[in-house]
Amino acid sequence: MSRNTQVASDQNAPSITNILAEYIVNHPSRGWDDDVEHEAHRTFMNWLGCAVGASQHEAAVAALAAVNTLQPSPQATILGRTEKVDIGSAALINGITSHTFDFDDTHLKTIIHPAGPVCSALVSLAELTGASGRQIIDSLVIGIDVSCRIGNMIYPDHYDRGWHITGTTGVLGAAAACARLLGLDVKQTTMALGIAASQPVGLREQFGTMTKPFHPGAAAQSGLMSALFAKSGFTASGRALEAPRGFAQVISTKYDWNEITDQLGERFEISFNSYKPFACGIVIHPSIDACVQLREKGVTPENLARIDLKVHPLVLELTGKKEPKDGLEGKFSVYHGCAAGLIFGRASEDEYADEIVNRADVVGVRNKVTAVIDNNMDEASVDATATLVDGSTVHIFVEHAIGSLQRPMTGKDLENKFHGMTDGILGAEQTSDLISACWNLSKSANIGKVTELSKK
Amino acid sequence: MSRNTQVASDQNAPSITNILAEYIVNHPSRGWDDDVEHEAHRTFMNWLGCAVGASQHEAAVAALAAVNTLQPSPQATILGRTEKVDIGSAALINGITSHTFDFDDTHLKTIIHPAGPVCSALVSLAELTGASGRQIIDSLVIGIDVSCRIGNMIYPDHYDRGWHITGTTGVLGAAAACARLLGLDVKQTTMALGIAASQPVGLREQFGTMTKPFHPGAAAQSGLMSALFAKSGFTASGRALEAPRGFAQVISTKYDWNEITDQLGERFEISFNSYKPFACGIVIHPSIDACVQLREKGVTPENLARIDLKVHPLVLELTGKKEPKDGLEGKFSVYHGCAAGLIFGRASEDEYADEIVNRADVVGVRNKVTAVIDNNMDEASVDATATLVDGSTVHIFVEHAIGSLQRPMTGKDLENKFHGMTDGILGAEQTSDLISACWNLSKSANIGKVTELSKK
Repeated sequence: MSRNTQVASDQNAPSITNILAEYIVNHPSRGWDDDVEHEAHRTFMNWLGCAVGASQHEAAVAALAAVNTLQPSPQATILGRTEKVDIGSAALINGITSHTFDFDDTHLKTIIHPAGPVCSALVSLAELTGASGRQIIDSLVIGIDVSCRIGNMIYPDHYDRGWHITGTTGVLGAAAACARLLGLDVKQTTMALGIAASQPVGLREQFGTMTKPFHPGAAAQSGLMSALFAKSGFTASGRALEAPRGFAQVISTKYDWNEITDQLGERFEISFNSYKPFACGIVIHPSIDACVQLREKGVTPENLARIDLKVHPLVLELTGKKEPKDGLEGKFSVYHGCAAGLIFGRASEDEYADEIVNRADVVGVRNKVTAVIDNNMDEASVDATATLVDGSTVHIFVEHAIGSLQRPMTGKDLENKFHGMTDGILGAEQTSDLISACWNLSKSANIGKVTELSKK
Repeated sequence: MSRNTQVASDQNAPSITNILAEYIVNHPSRGWDDDVEHEAHRTFMNWLGCAVGASQHEAAVAALAAVNTLQPSPQATILGRTEKVDIGSAALINGITSHTFDFDDTHLKTIIHPAGPVCSALVSLAELTGASGRQIIDSLVIGIDVSCRIGNMIYPDHYDRGWHITGTTGVLGAAAACARLLGLDVKQTTMALGIAASQPVGLREQFGTMTKPFHPGAAAQSGLMSALFAKSGFTASGRALEAPRGFAQVISTKYDWNEITDQLGERFEISFNSYKPFACGIVIHPSIDACVQLREKGVTPENLARIDLKVHPLVLELTGKKEPKDGLEGKFSVYHGCAAGLIFGRASEDEYADEIVNRADVVGVRNKVTAVIDNNMDEASVDATATLVDGSTVHIFVEHAIGSLQRPMTGKDLENKFHGMTDGILGAEQTSDLISACWNLSKSANIGKVTELSKK
């Protein structure tokens, strides 16, 4: 047997697994400024609305049926439903629903959707342990910091290779959050990260199927279980993240260790989290925003001849479906997104119903949209020109779409988005109470009020 | 944002996910010759002995404690113990124990240990569904064929990169086996493989820790759950294995599609399965075998001056620990393996007890062993020269170690190995009955006798 068993590697990586474990265990409670504290509540609330909102989706029904084969104990709430299941299964299902509408949060630097794995694991675990709201928010900030810093370390090479970075880094964020919530010591926390490192989940090939939202769900469950295993004395490599045959070097060709240690405990990645105004992949948002603005300038389906978009390459790579057949495929079609923006002035979950995607007037506008790649276009931007039937043109350049860090949604925007997702399930009054419970989470004795109000 | 989002890829891969699904669903029951049928029973028996044998190990105790946090329903047996847990957790724990002693089977072409993921998932599921022994053996042969063919497709590049191939391919083998056992149709089986493809588990950095055997356990659990999700209507990409951003192209730089289709349904990879006579990684077996033979030729700890080994590069890469501190580290030390072979004439689990690894005479012989890499040495071979204190030498060349395909263990050897692992737990009489139940599995109405006799 003659073959090269050597792969290029960095034998001298810093001990980032241990460095992160020290941080997870020892960073002080509420050891950050008011902006970070506020962003944590915004992140939590946005995640919860998404999870409740998709709780009746066929993906949730299928996942619950599979999990019920195991006759799980009723330990934790499936948000938006009446059933309870064991904490691992609840983390899985809530993680799935929170990402099903593609309406959750985005860490723009890495395209990670950080709340799904972290919050889904935390809430299920907290429901069992009775952890305080303060402990939950602390664990949320730290868990998201861990997953997004790991994302910064390996992005973009890791993502370009084909991994769904939300799942691969999410299992580590969830493990970190649960280790903090369980009060594990540094050695146990190192082991929790180590066990989690062996379980990256998620291929980009799954985009457009139920297995895409399965990724943050599985990451939540595996991260939670990794922390429980570590608590029970299970062992892993203490250098599982950085060793030559550890997570980063196996899963990516880029591994920038400084992204872990730079201003650790001083700069928090949750500060760079954003929330979607539109129920689809973030790369289409500038295009939809542009079409909403065209509508506001008087462009209508009737007077429109064509729309020409100049877009970042990822837009067509991720969302280039010309002829989406149903709502799910519609999420991966910049053409449908533009039609929704122009006709309805929004692209919430309702605009991704199967019947809307196939409605004649929507298809009509969709077929008038052309998108070409502009390699100089920023991912946050789009250039849109509508040509009207009378030959005149209307031009819109969007530098930063609504929902970006530069044009963030307000608290009221987030509340309206929450109502839009959950009023049909929980009713407007219960939704308002639930929103209040979210804003007050850090002061709550436990997660009980949130989970109680999240029941259908 | 300017970066290259393109990774070299094969856009025109054959539809191997679908091809495998067709095979899994449609291959006839017992559609193979007597040798394959017999090997399936050998594989099953060897796996079961390993799982029962390690059932009292601290890794099993820690895993069970973590799982019990979920208050699992008593659906399925933890082999070698009295407790029952839900089928997913049982698959996980039995998969862990089956690999804890590093004493399980090996598909030599890929260094995959195929039974752990496949059998652990199958037995737990069969305990719930009441599937017949015939169905179990059918699913076992097909599940192992799927995982090992996928291994052939991506080995060695995938392994060299740092993945623990047993876990990464095992989740697909377990999903295939469970899909067959559940009687899923082709579309559902394609989805099961798709969901499983997003969950590769296992980094080689974990070797020497409990997370190494965690890999086949997690693969068993995830593969089983993938089949249950598919049965419930959960969707995934139908090209999850072969697409440019699917499993093979993301996880390996080599992907030889022919390894999937070549003689599919005619040649069965289980025919190339082997069983370990020594309780450690397969790469040390030729060296231990050589030292057992040196012992038979009169070499003793007293008359020995030194042993010089010429070994394949992987021996030192995987098992080069000069000073193992305990039994677990001893498994990753060719030096300790040689000392055990020379002193005891064997290297079963007893020779990897902490006290044996640290015993003065064992350390003495260990320190007399020198190993150098010979790039022309086959992985199956070793060249060993013992120099005695009187200056004379004894030379052994092992072309194929005992336990290899060329020098397989006999049925009696396997039974003795089984007794050695389980007599201390189940007693000799119950062990004998259990061995009989294994040999007769294909004719059994269900798995009940096997699981009943596997209880402590």
